[in-house]
Amino acid sequence: MFHDVKSLSASVPMANAIRVLAMDAVLHANSGHPGMPMGMADIAVALWAGHLKHNPKNPNWSDRDRFVLSNGHGSMLIYSLLHLTGYDLSIDDIKAFRTLHSKTPGHPERGYTPGVETTTGPLGQGIANAVGMAVAEKVLAAEFNRLDHTIVDHFTYAFLGDGCLMEGISHEACSLAGTLGLGKLIVFYDDNGISIDGHVEGWFSDDTPARFRSYNWHVMPAVDGHNISEVLAAIDAAKADRGRPTLICCKTVIGKGAPTKAGSHDSHGNPLGAAEIAAARRALDWPHPAFEIPFEVYDAWNADKLGGERESDWIGRFARYRDQYPELASEYDRRINGRLPADFSQLSDDFVQKAASQADAVATRKASLNAVEAFTPVLPELVGGSADLAGSNMTIGREAKPLTKASGGNYVYYGVREFGMAAIVNGMLAHGGVRPFGGTYVMFSEYARNAIRMAALMKLGVIHVLTHDSIALGQDGPTHQPIEQLATLRMMPNLDVWRPCDATETAVAWQAALQHNGTPTVLALSRQNLPAQTRTAKQVNDIAKGGYTLSKEASPLQVVIIATGSEVEIAVEAQRELQGQGIGVRVVSLPSTFLFDRQDHAYRQDVLPANIPRVSVEAGVADYWRKYVGLEGAVVGIDSFGESAAPDVLFKHFGVTASAVVKAAQSLLSSSNRTEGR
Amino acid sequence: MFHDVKSLSASVPMANAIRVLAMDAVLHANSGHPGMPMGMADIAVALWAGHLKHNPKNPNWSDRDRFVLSNGHGSMLIYSLLHLTGYDLSIDDIKAFRTLHSKTPGHPERGYTPGVETTTGPLGQGIANAVGMAVAEKVLAAEFNRLDHTIVDHFTYAFLGDGCLMEGISHEACSLAGTLGLGKLIVFYDDNGISIDGHVEGWFSDDTPARFRSYNWHVMPAVDGHNISEVLAAIDAAKADRGRPTLICCKTVIGKGAPTKAGSHDSHGNPLGAAEIAAARRALDWPHPAFEIPFEVYDAWNADKLGGERESDWIGRFARYRDQYPELASEYDRRINGRLPADFSQLSDDFVQKAASQADAVATRKASLNAVEAFTPVLPELVGGSADLAGSNMTIGREAKPLTKASGGNYVYYGVREFGMAAIVNGMLAHGGVRPFGGTYVMFSEYARNAIRMAALMKLGVIHVLTHDSIALGQDGPTHQPIEQLATLRMMPNLDVWRPCDATETAVAWQAALQHNGTPTVLALSRQNLPAQTRTAKQVNDIAKGGYTLSKEASPLQVVIIATGSEVEIAVEAQRELQGQGIGVRVVSLPSTFLFDRQDHAYRQDVLPANIPRVSVEAGVADYWRKYVGLEGAVVGIDSFGESAAPDVLFKHFGVTASAVVKAAQSLLSSSNRTEGR
Repeated sequence: MFHDVKSLSASVPMANAIRVLAMDAVLHANSGHPGMPMGMADIAVALWAGHLKHNPKNPNWSDRDRFVLSNGHGSMLIYSLLHLTGYDLSIDDIKAFRTLHSKTPGHPERGYTPGVETTTGPLGQGIANAVGMAVAEKVLAAEFNRLDHTIVDHFTYAFLGDGCLMEGISHEACSLAGTLGLGKLIVFYDDNGISIDGHVEGWFSDDTPARFRSYNWHVMPAVDGHNISEVLAAIDAAKADRGRPTLICCKTVIGKGAPTKAGSHDSHGNPLGAAEIAAARRALDWPHPAFEIPFEVYDAWNADKLGGERESDWIGRFARYRDQYPELASEYDRRINGRLPADFSQLSDDFVQKAASQADAVATRKASLNAVEAFTPVLPELVGGSADLAGSNMTIGREAKPLTKASGGNYVYYGVREFGMAAIVNGMLAHGGVRPFGGTYVMFSEYARNAIRMAALMKLGVIHVLTHDSIALGQDGPTHQPIEQLATLRMMPNLDVWRPCDATETAVAWQAALQHNGTPTVLALSRQNLPAQTRTAKQVNDIAKGGYTLSKEASPLQVVIIATGSEVEIAVEAQRELQGQGIGVRVVSLPSTFLFDRQDHAYRQDVLPANIPRVSVEAGVADYWRKYVGLEGAVVGIDSFGESAAPDVLFKHFGVTASAVVKAAQSLLSSSNRTEGR
Repeated sequence: MFHDVKSLSASVPMANAIRVLAMDAVLHANSGHPGMPMGMADIAVALWAGHLKHNPKNPNWSDRDRFVLSNGHGSMLIYSLLHLTGYDLSIDDIKAFRTLHSKTPGHPERGYTPGVETTTGPLGQGIANAVGMAVAEKVLAAEFNRLDHTIVDHFTYAFLGDGCLMEGISHEACSLAGTLGLGKLIVFYDDNGISIDGHVEGWFSDDTPARFRSYNWHVMPAVDGHNISEVLAAIDAAKADRGRPTLICCKTVIGKGAPTKAGSHDSHGNPLGAAEIAAARRALDWPHPAFEIPFEVYDAWNADKLGGERESDWIGRFARYRDQYPELASEYDRRINGRLPADFSQLSDDFVQKAASQADAVATRKASLNAVEAFTPVLPELVGGSADLAGSNMTIGREAKPLTKASGGNYVYYGVREFGMAAIVNGMLAHGGVRPFGGTYVMFSEYARNAIRMAALMKLGVIHVLTHDSIALGQDGPTHQPIEQLATLRMMPNLDVWRPCDATETAVAWQAALQHNGTPTVLALSRQNLPAQTRTAKQVNDIAKGGYTLSKEASPLQVVIIATGSEVEIAVEAQRELQGQGIGVRVVSLPSTFLFDRQDHAYRQDVLPANIPRVSVEAGVADYWRKYVGLEGAVVGIDSFGESAAPDVLFKHFGVTASAVVKAAQSLLSSSNRTEGR
């Protein structure tokens, strides 16, 4: 390990190994970003060889330091570091850079590469993930550490560049990090003055140190990012400040080592070319062929021994902790491994049954709060929060204890920072040991949309409590009323969107969200009270299938009405009216299209029999529902923006009513023998 | 006007008139936000009576100062101001607050209320719109003003609160405003220490003055927002600094005037209640009944006379300008009224014909650049830009002149600020006189999604040049490859999404985007070269209908293949193969579903005949296409996230190929006599 080497002489070839791996892999792939790894190589040596606590042989050691490459386009930096320090990432893996199913995709992807903590590439989200990791560490340390037993005690490090700093999410996440005093978060700013369009001064002239001081950060300005001693000292100073996150501003030269392209955006996002690379090899005094690293460089980098010792030390300390606090230790084990308590299945079933038997008319946001309050005592890993709508979203329950600068807690006041919140909860879940949920209005999930997508991509089971799920939001008007949001969220791969119609469906939705830890969940919840639907035990059981027959036809089936959420009530009313006319109508509740689509064909066919006309009703865009009703079916929905008025006025104005459903069904039946194409 | 009154005594009832209108209207509507208007009433007196250049009798006077209420929930503030100063907004309109189709919806909505410049409510976007207005003013001033003729010379004022400042977009927009030195932008921060969740210090502890100084703003900290003289002096100082935008930080008490609820979030978002309002009336010494304002208060507020004089003065100056620069003056008229040049229709038709006759195989992003370069000389109102992807998006043409701190221009380097860019272009278009377009990758439009929606809601014909529109983006991987983005953008009301398949369709897309100024347009463009399709003159003509038969069946029609963009090539290849098997296949190109859906039934039926099986192919989520192919049709698409690999590898991996389309068509034909439901 580097810090055992008293002289810094070993650091030069160590850094150059990164530089040549980056140049060569990008050339080999004919695609990629060599400039950043070459520019940050010396900083990487200081951090990874001088400070980072990790064990390449166990990337899952729970008390490892976390490292996030927020400027993820420089992925060859982290791949080089993982390869050189001894992770299960071979030189052949490096050669497979940017090819299908390799461990070395274009950007770092969580789950693809041992040692990659989070998927980065969409700028600004990595730093927000890092803030989430530091939040999780703070929460867990407060909960599990005991006097003389610091079981949870690690740093979170992040690299970022100008791009991350320009993105608004960096403001949201870093402002909150300062307020929360996340002293174990240490961020390195690659201040190279270059972005894709060239020298940044024409579009980015912030005084970044002053900006971060305004967030209550510890800022170390003007560190020479190519002077390893300076960087090492900066890290020491950063670690010593436990009350504030630290930003180490490192002046670097992008593409350092490339004779003609260093310092220019020409080195940013394209291969340097064979001639430039050959010249760089000469300039770096690196005579070795591509993908050949001298043994002594591997040896200087290898972190297996020290990493193993460090983990062993922790294992010993954890054993002593277990002796003294056996229950805490097994709870820690359970949580860090992401397991639900053994009795959760039974407990949550009981909760669902209780909701079904009580049959209260409540807003589903209130039913959601009931679930939070019921589950928090048995799932202390739940960490709630809201983007300044704690009361409206009903995410703050009896057991909520706010996380503050001074103390741990299980509730985060995220402030008006929807995107930051969504990326922070991703980081918290990626860290492990906590199960975060955050709230905002359905509408403002749009601000956070790409972070919700990142959870889906990373298979992180975060939970988004999104309330005020339709025009029933009322007077606040079209800027606040979701129209296309439910449909478009459902179109995101690996995202389970629930829109429950009453307290029982809401209880099942929470149960499913907690049980499916590889899929993020959106709970789309009503502001207004919704009546309780009556169900048989089998129907209650079928809710978890995402869709089911809520109310069976009283006479031979002629039409199926499909509805979700608050419009289930409308569907049931329409059914009553149509059945009064002697028409056989079934109501299907479809709270989770994600889960319904994953049922077998027989079940889906049973719920939605072929060749029976279908009408859907949902207070949102119509086109989505064609996948269930076909071209011949009818959709009662809203294809324009909302308006500012009272909810009942709006439902009438937009024609989302039982009588509209009745008319649509009648029209289908009268034309069902005609063949009219669209 | 207030500044004619030497004593400030009139200001007290003027401010109190706002307070009581806000309290009474919110109580009357039983919904709304009284706290902010009551807290900012004194600031509003200073600005609107002391400085704002406007004419209530002509809200469209082009050189008026712009005013943006970024904290739009306090809408009763602007409604009170518009009513009191003499706009066409009666006391009955105020009484109709938050009711359907009133001029006084819950949040300020552009197009609903004379004097409302932009729709605000989604926090942070108003300030970014204001930055856009200041950009437009700077661009136009540089272009149209002449020595001794300052035709364009106004300020842009914005109010904002803690919520806007927490949102990331405030960072993006304000950082850029500082870099561009927008000296005529003056922003008032309502520093009341309250957000919905309560006192902000637990989640918002920024040193906001320091933050804005780090953006190169002129900052006036700690102004007493209830001391009108102080605020007046601050505005004077702000106007005197022409090199930097100014932030005036006003300490205020939320709900000021409410005896028990002032200073508390209880006054933020709910009616104060009859008792509190009665007590406030006593405390404010305001004996008048609800919705009755004394004549002398109306008189003190009325701005008709001064506003009329100011506009008359400007009209006189503009007449002298017209005498000296007749061509410039009529160009100004044309642009400020949002009219295209009379010959644009012919010119753009010629451009389309030229593209059709050249039949070059180019990437559609390159075809887009050709359009930009062709149209910029005839449309000097075009102001381009990109969020740090000028070269990749190909938005920067030969005629591009970057806007800088020192000079005007027609190209904005937005930096890595997608959301900021999208809201800034909204502000530019809302200002008038410019026609902005901005670029990023399709994927990162997600960062900007809610600002694109706001353009659609406000009917602003901005243009988003979104490139790298599929997995063909390649090695950068799933974080950068759109999958559900095209479909979900198409689901937004009033947004026209074009995905052209070659240079000719791209030319028509640009033509349509420019001609439709009440609808924003997304141009989804390829990174890779696409072959030119051959078309008859009628087919070229039909592109503007959004969908048309690109390649007719060679034998009686048996199956229709629908495709967009890069997959049209695949469809044509599949057609060739199927026709080789004697199957009658038609290829329909559907570059704009928005426009196709708006064609009459006969045309749509002609292109997509009923009861002929349909296959769609697009490298994106399948569900969207059910609206065209029905339950019985086949969709070739991608329902999982992308991967990092070369484009050709990915198309094979995800099965988006001609052979997949052929198989799907064959399977449909073999089952077409069977009735198999889904």
